[in-house]
Amino acid sequence: MKQELKFTFLGGDNRQKQAVSILAQDGFPINVFGWNSIPHEKNVCISETLDPELLDCNVLMLPVPYGKSGKIHLPDPYPDVTLTSLLPNLKPGTVIIFGKEDKEFSEIADSYSYSCYDILKEESFSVRNAIPTAEGAIQRAMEQTDITLHHANVLILGYGRIGKVLSRMLLGIGSHVAVEARSSGDIAWIGESGCQAVPLDKLDGVLGTQDIIFNTVPAVLLDRFRLGKISPECRILDLASQPGGVDLEAAEDLGIHATQYPGLPGLVAPKSAARVICQSTMDILERHFQDDGTGGESNCC
Amino acid sequence: MKQELKFTFLGGDNRQKQAVSILAQDGFPINVFGWNSIPHEKNVCISETLDPELLDCNVLMLPVPYGKSGKIHLPDPYPDVTLTSLLPNLKPGTVIIFGKEDKEFSEIADSYSYSCYDILKEESFSVRNAIPTAEGAIQRAMEQTDITLHHANVLILGYGRIGKVLSRMLLGIGSHVAVEARSSGDIAWIGESGCQAVPLDKLDGVLGTQDIIFNTVPAVLLDRFRLGKISPECRILDLASQPGGVDLEAAEDLGIHATQYPGLPGLVAPKSAARVICQSTMDILERHFQDDGTGGESNCC
Amino acid sequence: MKQELKFTFLGGDNRQKQAVSILAQDGFPINVFGWNSIPHEKNVCISETLDPELLDCNVLMLPVPYGKSGKIHLPDPYPDVTLTSLLPNLKPGTVIIFGKEDKEFSEIADSYSYSCYDILKEESFSVRNAIPTAEGAIQRAMEQTDITLHHANVLILGYGRIGKVLSRMLLGIGSHVAVEARSSGDIAWIGESGCQAVPLDKLDGVLGTQDIIFNTVPAVLLDRFRLGKISPECRILDLASQPGGVDLEAAEDLGIHATQYPGLPGLVAPKSAARVICQSTMDILERHFQDDGTGGESNCC
Amino acid sequence: MKQELKFTFLGGDNRQKQAVSILAQDGFPINVFGWNSIPHEKNVCISETLDPELLDCNVLMLPVPYGKSGKIHLPDPYPDVTLTSLLPNLKPGTVIIFGKEDKEFSEIADSYSYSCYDILKEESFSVRNAIPTAEGAIQRAMEQTDITLHHANVLILGYGRIGKVLSRMLLGIGSHVAVEARSSGDIAWIGESGCQAVPLDKLDGVLGTQDIIFNTVPAVLLDRFRLGKISPECRILDLASQPGGVDLEAAEDLGIHATQYPGLPGLVAPKSAARVICQSTMDILERHFQDDGTGGESNCC
Repeated sequence: MKQELKFTFLGGDNRQKQAVSILAQDGFPINVFGWNSIPHEKNVCISETLDPELLDCNVLMLPVPYGKSGKIHLPDPYPDVTLTSLLPNLKPGTVIIFGKEDKEFSEIADSYSYSCYDILKEESFSVRNAIPTAEGAIQRAMEQTDITLHHANVLILGYGRIGKVLSRMLLGIGSHVAVEARSSGDIAWIGESGCQAVPLDKLDGVLGTQDIIFNTVPAVLLDRFRLGKISPECRILDLASQPGGVDLEAAEDLGIHATQYPGLPGLVAPKSAARVICQSTMDILERHFQDDGTGGESNCC
Repeated sequence: MKQELKFTFLGGDNRQKQAVSILAQDGFPINVFGWNSIPHEKNVCISETLDPELLDCNVLMLPVPYGKSGKIHLPDPYPDVTLTSLLPNLKPGTVIIFGKEDKEFSEIADSYSYSCYDILKEESFSVRNAIPTAEGAIQRAMEQTDITLHHANVLILGYGRIGKVLSRMLLGIGSHVAVEARSSGDIAWIGESGCQAVPLDKLDGVLGTQDIIFNTVPAVLLDRFRLGKISPECRILDLASQPGGVDLEAAEDLGIHATQYPGLPGLVAPKSAARVICQSTMDILERHFQDDGTGGESNCC
Repeated sequence: MKQELKFTFLGGDNRQKQAVSILAQDGFPINVFGWNSIPHEKNVCISETLDPELLDCNVLMLPVPYGKSGKIHLPDPYPDVTLTSLLPNLKPGTVIIFGKEDKEFSEIADSYSYSCYDILKEESFSVRNAIPTAEGAIQRAMEQTDITLHHANVLILGYGRIGKVLSRMLLGIGSHVAVEARSSGDIAWIGESGCQAVPLDKLDGVLGTQDIIFNTVPAVLLDRFRLGKISPECRILDLASQPGGVDLEAAEDLGIHATQYPGLPGLVAPKSAARVICQSTMDILERHFQDDGTGGESNCC
Repeated sequence: MKQELKFTFLGGDNRQKQAVSILAQDGFPINVFGWNSIPHEKNVCISETLDPELLDCNVLMLPVPYGKSGKIHLPDPYPDVTLTSLLPNLKPGTVIIFGKEDKEFSEIADSYSYSCYDILKEESFSVRNAIPTAEGAIQRAMEQTDITLHHANVLILGYGRIGKVLSRMLLGIGSHVAVEARSSGDIAWIGESGCQAVPLDKLDGVLGTQDIIFNTVPAVLLDRFRLGKISPECRILDLASQPGGVDLEAAEDLGIHATQYPGLPGLVAPKSAARVICQSTMDILERHFQDDGTGGESNCC
């Protein structure tokens, strides 16, 4: 399979640029469009226009997230590209890898027969992407505090992928780690892992002694009432996607220091984040070509 | 809630006996039937017959597994007790906690209005029970080998609950740990955890260098072909439920040392295993009385 | 003992300022001289002059390092204070805690009967101070690289206190850690800890694959020859005291990125670094008053 | 160097037998005397008598410990061999590796010019040998208790090599680990490692809540007074050399369960223990032939 892959990248952020380098070094031919500064590299062909040669590929890599409402978002000064203008020009059998499907994307994609994979729905992507997120959160916590994480009292809200990776790393550094979760299964896992388990209904009782709180839950757990229990010396780092898990207005009123950190992987470790995209792309393609795109644990649209 | 709980235990193994002690020491009144040797303890009332006082309780604890085909299995010399003879004599509202539901159990239980909970379906029970299983497996591996686990090459087949706990403990002791799994999500988690990830389709290629293999998958991964690649010095410990994951006949033919280890928690750490039953029983009861037995993440039959 | 302690601080850096806060919050009376900006706090008495009340204490805290050639270095705009002018005015029995003894210090101190303790010679201080040093090194490495430390190839030169703490933390984050050491005892410990052990005479052979190298050895291990083997993508962080362990001129010639990071504890975690000073001060005082300053594992001058 | 090594083994325990296998598999010619059952292997020449061919070697391996009072102890039915009868027959330049030097050994050895190395004085041997000791202690603790080590309260007395390895492994399994030590430096290291540090003078205050106590200190820390504070459910495992660290008579009087475990490496992991002997033997020989036996960190008699 690997020998015949031919990629086309349309835009994206720093991670996609680094992904181009990684794949080119692995020997794949790559067409690129939509960045005005990208170094020339072996195996990489940069197009200035959306011409047919650009689309001569069997894997089309779109941004993650791809854009919205059926329009692929490209970096300045390139205008957005509509899916409806793009898709008719692809070769049959092209695999499209993109991020954050919306209604318009799936409607347009459905009218063509390309296999489209939303990389954000890949479990392996989400797991691997939690690593630079967690590590970035640790870096930001180190930068924000005048104490060491070693022996610091840390509370993590949520035990999803980021909560799991973050708690393991913090234990490894030597923090005292408590983790809040709702389900009794998660509570059991947290205890097994060596952290203090805090069921959601016991959360109010433990607030107050933390040096650092990381939120990973996309729901406002830290409301005005709970913020009122938190020490002003505590730093809150919110890693959940918008609108996050902290009542920021209340935090400001109360003099509590809370900061949102979206998109950490691309900021703190773009090269590792690019590798995550490449690895999960390869997972998808291996499965796709094994399956003829018809089966398995595919999240094909 | 806790003040009003009144338990009745009908039989069970060493774990239930220890659970009686733990709950009695926590102050709960407990009726017991079905063991011919149990020390007298404060709060514990031992019945010699299945009389009405015995069943004066609001929580009925049956064995795990409960028995089969609608008959509760009691230790010698007690005869088995049928659910149909038992259930009519319980007080309305009694909660029944048992293990390993079968068709007969659910049919009979359905004709009554008691809330029945299969503890084996509780995620928190399965997670916590994986701890004595993993630790027992480590003890058996230490006993079986003339090498240290530290720096030993270990392969774990499967990354379910036992595989997760076991791999974490072995890393902690200092083994070189590889873990086989099928899904790309698990493969990503295994890599994150610091183990070597072995996708199932790469398994054949890695066999041969292991000092110890733990199987946790209830499917014959170690068939004659794969056993043929394993060193005769290697020890295989099969932790999966019957019929296990090793072709034992082929192993014997090939001179490969493989042993099945069912029921480790009750054998190596009955007291901790009893605590696991108590904790998950309390999880169930808390949820039950909060919910009026009507909802939540209940696995009520 | 604790009830009667009365501290006087003469200058110091951010760590001493925070130490004043910590000790004041613990209820000790404290005199302070030599900072022009220090917030008023309960229990803290700030002097503008070197008057007798200032020296009414039983523990005199000098900077770490204290200064040099018998002169205590104070922050601008305060002039340095000579030991010969200061010591005659202390009360008999005053304990002096300072850093980095030199010949002048010991000669002058010897002519008085005060007990003087160089905190830098306290094993407990060095161990605890290695923690913010190691964590600061991790923070700087995160900031300098576009990859995650998780799964990065890291080499640590030296297995003293900083090497030990740093290797443990990096393993905890998930790095692949190799550690260079000279003695066969250290090599055995490194292997035990789960890192790859690199005897000094094998160092040349392993250079080239590292993403990050931390130096902790105060000797130029990374000379022009060895730097020539290192990848230009590698980041070298030198934590050893001046002149460090890297031939910086050669590094620049070769386009190798190497940076010195002196004094990390005070920079990245001054509050934790202050706690380290307070803890080891208390260790010293407890031992001193137990011993009447005459014995034990004292490093009293 | 390695090409020319030629070993002669005189007796020893199971570890030396396994060491013969390991070295023979590594291709070294080996003469053996003093075991009546040893399998024939390639490269191994078994002598029935103490003839000159037997002593045609450049490395003589004696038991660890070698015996006593100048007599090498051999297993039944072989009579002991005196050093005075053996040494005159060796070739000049033969290196002797043995264990547990006593006055007689050094006096006799001094009158010859052979280089003699006591492997028990090798730091690398002691470190590596602590691994099977610690792992054996964990195995015995698992066998002795009806609880899991995970979440058990464990106290380790002493923070020498065994204490360090044991605490790291127990943390890795998930125990709550406290470690007693005397020096403030060790106390700082214990805290750094994630264990609870117990200074010796605070030991009395923490006794009572432990499930398991491991003693590694060759001094009776657990005297009658302290044993009186320990729970009868607690298991004490004494790993220190004779006479150990527990007042066994007092323990029996008080119904406290204490057991001595000497010689664990050879019992629980003879093959790994043999590897430790081989590794440290190679360390010694490498240093010896590099140095011409004259210098370095040698512990040459």
